[in-house]
Amino acid sequence: MPASVRDDREMIAAFSIAPLGTGDSVSEAVAECIAIVRASGLPNETNAMFTNLEGDWDEVMGVIKHCVEHMAEVAPRVSLVIKIDYRPGVVGALHGKVEAIERHLGHA
Amino acid sequence: MPASVRDDREMIAAFSIAPLGTGDSVSEAVAECIAIVRASGLPNETNAMFTNLEGDWDEVMGVIKHCVEHMAEVAPRVSLVIKIDYRPGVVGALHGKVEAIERHLGHA
Amino acid sequence: MPASVRDDREMIAAFSIAPLGTGDSVSEAVAECIAIVRASGLPNETNAMFTNLEGDWDEVMGVIKHCVEHMAEVAPRVSLVIKIDYRPGVVGALHGKVEAIERHLGHA
Amino acid sequence: MPASVRDDREMIAAFSIAPLGTGDSVSEAVAECIAIVRASGLPNETNAMFTNLEGDWDEVMGVIKHCVEHMAEVAPRVSLVIKIDYRPGVVGALHGKVEAIERHLGHA
Repeated sequence: MPASVRDDREMIAAFSIAPLGTGDSVSEAVAECIAIVRASGLPNETNAMFTNLEGDWDEVMGVIKHCVEHMAEVAPRVSLVIKIDYRPGVVGALHGKVEAIERHLGHA
Repeated sequence: MPASVRDDREMIAAFSIAPLGTGDSVSEAVAECIAIVRASGLPNETNAMFTNLEGDWDEVMGVIKHCVEHMAEVAPRVSLVIKIDYRPGVVGALHGKVEAIERHLGHA
Repeated sequence: MPASVRDDREMIAAFSIAPLGTGDSVSEAVAECIAIVRASGLPNETNAMFTNLEGDWDEVMGVIKHCVEHMAEVAPRVSLVIKIDYRPGVVGALHGKVEAIERHLGHA
Repeated sequence: MPASVRDDREMIAAFSIAPLGTGDSVSEAVAECIAIVRASGLPNETNAMFTNLEGDWDEVMGVIKHCVEHMAEVAPRVSLVIKIDYRPGVVGALHGKVEAIERHLGHA
């Protein structure tokens, strides 16, 4: 069954992870985390500030934990921010939320 | 002078705003905030969880304040989350950060 | 062995949880989550904006998941913000971080 | 008129500020920001993860901007997270919110 028709996606998490105690250019370590996210198979999208990830709690938190542990191998301290929209039964919200806004604005 | 060559973009803010004390479908009120953001002329991008906005402190915070005050007209309480990457002298980061990650992943 | 001498506290999480689609006074539902946190036995502290919780990843995330699932029983949608300071090997940071700041300010 | 009876406190902001591109022990730079906050005269409280600050939008954001600019003098990049509970007309929320929770838990 393709991911897009699963009906058990219970949440979207936006997360941002940064190593502390290393240089200020963190894009290599961050890129490795994005690779972990993409390998998970969960719907995801990376923008300038957060990576959005859709799934159920254990799936999503498992991926984020993997990222944190990976980053902790190269940095003494890791800072992590997660914002979660938990809304069981709403499918395809990763794209649907933006589409709903565009409809309100008359663009769709 | 086109926005892309300005050198005074000092930060990117990702913000998420939600009315409390109203129904659970907040997309209309959120859409009106996105309209405020787009009317600002600042580089911006809206995804499923946050709206990213690039500019200097006063420009960006002025837009966010405008959104909060607008939402407070229809809700008794407003919840707001802002994450800021403050990095004076880095131009075009709204798109440049994601491009840097893709380069590390060998996609650009 | 008392909690204060355990050496496996790997992180502090600050989390804030809010039901959406209910009234604007959320203190009853929030209070029940605080009760769940206190029953966990992990070092914790609740202030006006966040509850701080210290432990390892699985302990802390297990408590937060419990809170979210509890709140989802009474609200169609739950909004959650988590900020994590992941720093393996640092013990007693829940109080130690503030004490370090006070020392810098000459108050301790 | 003492601050405690002012009726124009419109919000509480919890903010966390960290320099990037410096060492992993950030307590000195953070302590200087706390000193700025305390000098502001606004009701405030610092815990292990955030500093909570109560006032109106311009007062609170003015203090946070001052902190960011101070930190940007010693770090090439500053990361900032702000969570705001905007609720005009509610006075003394910095302490009142926790007291409301304790009442629900039967401790007050």
